[in-house]
Amino acid sequence: MKRRMFEADHEAFRASVREFLHRHVHPRTDEFIEAAAIPRDMWIEAGKQGFLGLEIPEEYGGGEARDYRYNTVLAEELAKVTAALSSCLGIHTDIVAPYLVDLTTEWQKRRWLPGFCSGEIVTAIGMTEPGGGSDLAALRTTAVRDGDTWVLNGSKTFITNGYSADLVVVAARTSPEKKAHGITLFGVESGMERFTRGRKLDKVGQTESDTAELFFDNVRVPHAHVIGEVDQGFAHMMERLPQERLGAAVSNLAHAAQILTETIEYTKQRKAFGQAIGSFQYNKFLLAELVTQLEVAQAFVDQAVMAHNEGELTAVDAAKAKWWSAQVQNDVLDACVQLHGGYGFMNEYRVARAWRDARVTKIWAGSNEIMKELIGRDLGL
Amino acid sequence: MKRRMFEADHEAFRASVREFLHRHVHPRTDEFIEAAAIPRDMWIEAGKQGFLGLEIPEEYGGGEARDYRYNTVLAEELAKVTAALSSCLGIHTDIVAPYLVDLTTEWQKRRWLPGFCSGEIVTAIGMTEPGGGSDLAALRTTAVRDGDTWVLNGSKTFITNGYSADLVVVAARTSPEKKAHGITLFGVESGMERFTRGRKLDKVGQTESDTAELFFDNVRVPHAHVIGEVDQGFAHMMERLPQERLGAAVSNLAHAAQILTETIEYTKQRKAFGQAIGSFQYNKFLLAELVTQLEVAQAFVDQAVMAHNEGELTAVDAAKAKWWSAQVQNDVLDACVQLHGGYGFMNEYRVARAWRDARVTKIWAGSNEIMKELIGRDLGL
Amino acid sequence: MKRRMFEADHEAFRASVREFLHRHVHPRTDEFIEAAAIPRDMWIEAGKQGFLGLEIPEEYGGGEARDYRYNTVLAEELAKVTAALSSCLGIHTDIVAPYLVDLTTEWQKRRWLPGFCSGEIVTAIGMTEPGGGSDLAALRTTAVRDGDTWVLNGSKTFITNGYSADLVVVAARTSPEKKAHGITLFGVESGMERFTRGRKLDKVGQTESDTAELFFDNVRVPHAHVIGEVDQGFAHMMERLPQERLGAAVSNLAHAAQILTETIEYTKQRKAFGQAIGSFQYNKFLLAELVTQLEVAQAFVDQAVMAHNEGELTAVDAAKAKWWSAQVQNDVLDACVQLHGGYGFMNEYRVARAWRDARVTKIWAGSNEIMKELIGRDLGL
Amino acid sequence: MKRRMFEADHEAFRASVREFLHRHVHPRTDEFIEAAAIPRDMWIEAGKQGFLGLEIPEEYGGGEARDYRYNTVLAEELAKVTAALSSCLGIHTDIVAPYLVDLTTEWQKRRWLPGFCSGEIVTAIGMTEPGGGSDLAALRTTAVRDGDTWVLNGSKTFITNGYSADLVVVAARTSPEKKAHGITLFGVESGMERFTRGRKLDKVGQTESDTAELFFDNVRVPHAHVIGEVDQGFAHMMERLPQERLGAAVSNLAHAAQILTETIEYTKQRKAFGQAIGSFQYNKFLLAELVTQLEVAQAFVDQAVMAHNEGELTAVDAAKAKWWSAQVQNDVLDACVQLHGGYGFMNEYRVARAWRDARVTKIWAGSNEIMKELIGRDLGL
Repeated sequence: MKRRMFEADHEAFRASVREFLHRHVHPRTDEFIEAAAIPRDMWIEAGKQGFLGLEIPEEYGGGEARDYRYNTVLAEELAKVTAALSSCLGIHTDIVAPYLVDLTTEWQKRRWLPGFCSGEIVTAIGMTEPGGGSDLAALRTTAVRDGDTWVLNGSKTFITNGYSADLVVVAARTSPEKKAHGITLFGVESGMERFTRGRKLDKVGQTESDTAELFFDNVRVPHAHVIGEVDQGFAHMMERLPQERLGAAVSNLAHAAQILTETIEYTKQRKAFGQAIGSFQYNKFLLAELVTQLEVAQAFVDQAVMAHNEGELTAVDAAKAKWWSAQVQNDVLDACVQLHGGYGFMNEYRVARAWRDARVTKIWAGSNEIMKELIGRDLGL
Repeated sequence: MKRRMFEADHEAFRASVREFLHRHVHPRTDEFIEAAAIPRDMWIEAGKQGFLGLEIPEEYGGGEARDYRYNTVLAEELAKVTAALSSCLGIHTDIVAPYLVDLTTEWQKRRWLPGFCSGEIVTAIGMTEPGGGSDLAALRTTAVRDGDTWVLNGSKTFITNGYSADLVVVAARTSPEKKAHGITLFGVESGMERFTRGRKLDKVGQTESDTAELFFDNVRVPHAHVIGEVDQGFAHMMERLPQERLGAAVSNLAHAAQILTETIEYTKQRKAFGQAIGSFQYNKFLLAELVTQLEVAQAFVDQAVMAHNEGELTAVDAAKAKWWSAQVQNDVLDACVQLHGGYGFMNEYRVARAWRDARVTKIWAGSNEIMKELIGRDLGL
Repeated sequence: MKRRMFEADHEAFRASVREFLHRHVHPRTDEFIEAAAIPRDMWIEAGKQGFLGLEIPEEYGGGEARDYRYNTVLAEELAKVTAALSSCLGIHTDIVAPYLVDLTTEWQKRRWLPGFCSGEIVTAIGMTEPGGGSDLAALRTTAVRDGDTWVLNGSKTFITNGYSADLVVVAARTSPEKKAHGITLFGVESGMERFTRGRKLDKVGQTESDTAELFFDNVRVPHAHVIGEVDQGFAHMMERLPQERLGAAVSNLAHAAQILTETIEYTKQRKAFGQAIGSFQYNKFLLAELVTQLEVAQAFVDQAVMAHNEGELTAVDAAKAKWWSAQVQNDVLDACVQLHGGYGFMNEYRVARAWRDARVTKIWAGSNEIMKELIGRDLGL
Repeated sequence: MKRRMFEADHEAFRASVREFLHRHVHPRTDEFIEAAAIPRDMWIEAGKQGFLGLEIPEEYGGGEARDYRYNTVLAEELAKVTAALSSCLGIHTDIVAPYLVDLTTEWQKRRWLPGFCSGEIVTAIGMTEPGGGSDLAALRTTAVRDGDTWVLNGSKTFITNGYSADLVVVAARTSPEKKAHGITLFGVESGMERFTRGRKLDKVGQTESDTAELFFDNVRVPHAHVIGEVDQGFAHMMERLPQERLGAAVSNLAHAAQILTETIEYTKQRKAFGQAIGSFQYNKFLLAELVTQLEVAQAFVDQAVMAHNEGELTAVDAAKAKWWSAQVQNDVLDACVQLHGGYGFMNEYRVARAWRDARVTKIWAGSNEIMKELIGRDLGL
């Protein structure tokens, strides 16, 4: 069904994103795969186009759109090219941005936001720890105050942009006795002494994104780098969950929809037993099911985008969008691989890489099981 | 997620429907089940409330709402009480109404619409034939012109309201050589000679609705009873498919949602092994999944309602809404039965009857398979 | 795949069961449905054929087969006619029989077994209680010793054969402080004072079986009616679970297989859009899936039968057979209904009744969820 | 459930295979992954152990076991280490062996079988072509007779062992006008002029196997290399399908079972929210479902092995085993990834690689869709 939420300005923005991708990204996707990274000059170029600072106030170099439909358009177009691109930029523009806009001091804004917008400061967020998964209550990284600095110890893992980030928003336990209510956020910069990174993790998919472990061994972080209030990190993170989950949902569906569109085209061209394989009734019905499944999910995510624009999207509704879209994405892509036959198992085919890329979306940023737990709890169960 | 499409007027209308149901229907549901029929005085009462003529122009006794959100509210509230109620009234208000409004002559309007609005003329639509199923090209009922009358021969089956209808819109083949393009619609009235009905069909569910076979044995129908243009019946029917399918989708979801809500409540009360059964993690996650599945489908159907209001809902998009909602409804209700344990298998429990009621929605008005065929064709496959 | 476990004697036995069904049951299935009961003369006739006493020693009138493949053949052939027949006779021959053979005194054997074999004593088993479900630890029926008698108080529900049974094996709490280890089994006979039954329960399916509530209001049961050891009822029941679950699994698959066979035949005859509906690729693949699913499950159940014959079937492996077969049965029958189109929703079609009949198998005798709990526990989780 | 088909000799053989794997393979799996190949010395070592010639007559160096349970044991143990190992050796020992034993001349036997048994001649089979997939009727490689030689032209793709094979059984069209009945098999040796290979294909999984394209550009193959009868290649291939499919099914289940066992262990060790993740009821039930699903499938495959030993396994029953086991394998492994959380997406974890490895089994050697087509046809649809 035709989507109903976009207006002319959004479509114009979409055209500009596509133009950018056409010029600067499409010709280089093999390079990204080879490098297992999004090169810095691509960030810089995206910065020039104004894509990185959608949520950032104009005075610090951003576009200050205040309309999540622009984020949606950007995330969708990136995901259509490759999931990792949407993940890497999404961490920066959708997930880290709200922390840096809402919770920062004037000094911090001036220090970080212009570079954030220009692509000179790439960001990441450090929550997950080895052994900890989605359980923030188990956070083991600590920060102990020592005069004007905090001394950080611990490690983080599965950090998207972790290898290349210039600034990482790190969650650390500052009041151990207060459990979830004793966590503080810190802006840790690359170059701070005793802050190191592990190798890039060798992932099943999304190999263009640099995912890494981070190590803090008595890293001294100035108090001026505290983001938000001391001991309020948990609340700061909770408040930003709706947008984080919504962004994931948007990318999930756009990624799957693009590959599905390409697959439908493929099934019209590819012949077997004397006819286009898409014309076999079993395949035809399967594709009809997949298209329905995707469009149905899209309606929900679009509704969530509009709710978010009005400040009404709850973390629980965003959880529904996140897990459902991840499931749909994975189901759709598995079927798309199957429709490609042996070629679906060859890495040179986009569908093969997309299938691998998608697998993580049911796991990261709160697994589907965590989402169901939250939804069940919200039902009073 | 909170639904976004209703405004204050719709909510006021919803309150009035609920009030009506509370007074006139809830106390009598056992009676409906016993009688295997919606009694006529219930229709009359619904007519008094203005529920039957939502789409009918004011001059003929209707409300002329021109806003499908009112039909949606009505269908939803009826379906929450019992699926059959929504089916029986829906055939009348949602499916037959557009034929009688758009295609009728002034003489026909005056003859039929006031009674249609008051509940004195209950209507049905006669398309499906024994052996024919969803295949209109196989239509075998014929009408041959003889001066000012047409002579109808054939039979129809699975006709909702068929046993009690005063007026049936009947599709018959008038130009056999023209295949689909030789079908005409007739307004056949009860009391016409040689128009008879079979017994009420003994159905798995929706037993409150009277479903019957209709027989036409040289029934003479005046030419003035032709609805729309001669030989254009197929086109007339195709044009009304979006609303027919949308109405089904609306009811499917409301029916399932109501039982799911009741089931969640049940799982909070019912104890086993010392705890509320809804608090077992497996059940909690299951309920979280069902709620997500329903809300996601609802967003799509709501989007379809708004598209329909603007005249933009295609038959294919309505097909997506119909089959998907039917699948969701059946999946949800099967799980709700399971959560009731042995009681879910007892007819005195609403959930047991609802499960039986729902089974037909994947079959009637174009089976899920037919819907997938149409969607696949629309993809160019 | 051809099943490998039956030998010539089993096939001969199968032929005799079929002959019996052909003569005495097939002509009367409508009567059973109408009566909502298996009439006593059918039991008597089955007794004459030697079907009821397969497990009973010869000296008490039984066949003493000591080979569960005969029980399998009987259960399968009954289930092919109607699920309820297999359930009612199965309770008697498969579930109650082992209690009466293994645990009874000589006096009890002489009192009950000859009638058990002849069909003059129809039996039932009374475990489940209102509000208790599968949770034996919550058993609330009590028996208090008073000299040579025990005084029973409490009630049972969902008791198959409950309305007509002459002898019910009833579990009651005799040592409340010992929890599961304080339960005793009693042979309660019809006619005992203050033992009454509720009405036949109005069920979604299996309407030919008489399922009822049983009430014990200070029923005095002679001590000689204690079956097995006092306070050992729980262990007695646990030991017999493998056979109970296996019998359910056998019936589940035979029931589904028969309807699937009939449905495949139907799809070869039934035409739509000019071809047999079974020849549409979507349906063809679906039927291929269902046949595979059934045959795969059958191999497991057959393996379980052979293990049981050697005394090696565990309760957990029987749990796997039970829940999986119930799921397969329900999936297969839902698809069979769909393939029948509108006729699948009409009670006069066997497929419609079979679909309703099957729904309970995921619930009774330990729901699928209980089975999963047991299997999970067995995995050490 | 305990499997019932193995006897003491099979278990002894299993112990010897495990010993071999423990000594020669486990320490080198990283090396295989790095090399994207099974090194030749591993083949030689397997030959020394007698694993390669299970089906080969003793006089040519084989073991002549004539009992497919040995092949089963070998395939299972290899698959438990890594799917690719089972695939590469399985092509040789299970799929190519029957061609070389049943259809070869004495000259061919002496030329090829000793090296086949010793591991000096690694084999492959060349059926699939670019653009052709499972459709043998579309075979485009041709062989034209020219005196004592045949001139081969064409190409093959997705050939397991293709890069390293010393001998490839190649299907080519010899009588184009006879369609399927004009295909002949040739033993093409490495080193034959104008027989070349493409690069190793970059696959999603099973990266340790060398899969390649083969090119025949006027390759002159001596007539003495014709395997079986001229123009009878199709029949030769059809007759060997049951064993090919059965071998795939055996590996599929063993591969999934091993990873599931490791995953269950993992869920007992891994803690989240203060408890072992396997003890969460949702996970516990999921694991119970997976174990059931696998054991049920195993019973069917075991039954098929015994049928095959007696020469009674049909191609259709083998098709059921193949597609069902592939589906089960993929479902199980997807769940195992999920249970590992973020680690399931890291290539260093076995579960991640296993998930990628498994994806091809629904596609190769006749996709699941082809299997369903065959089964449906066998039902007379």
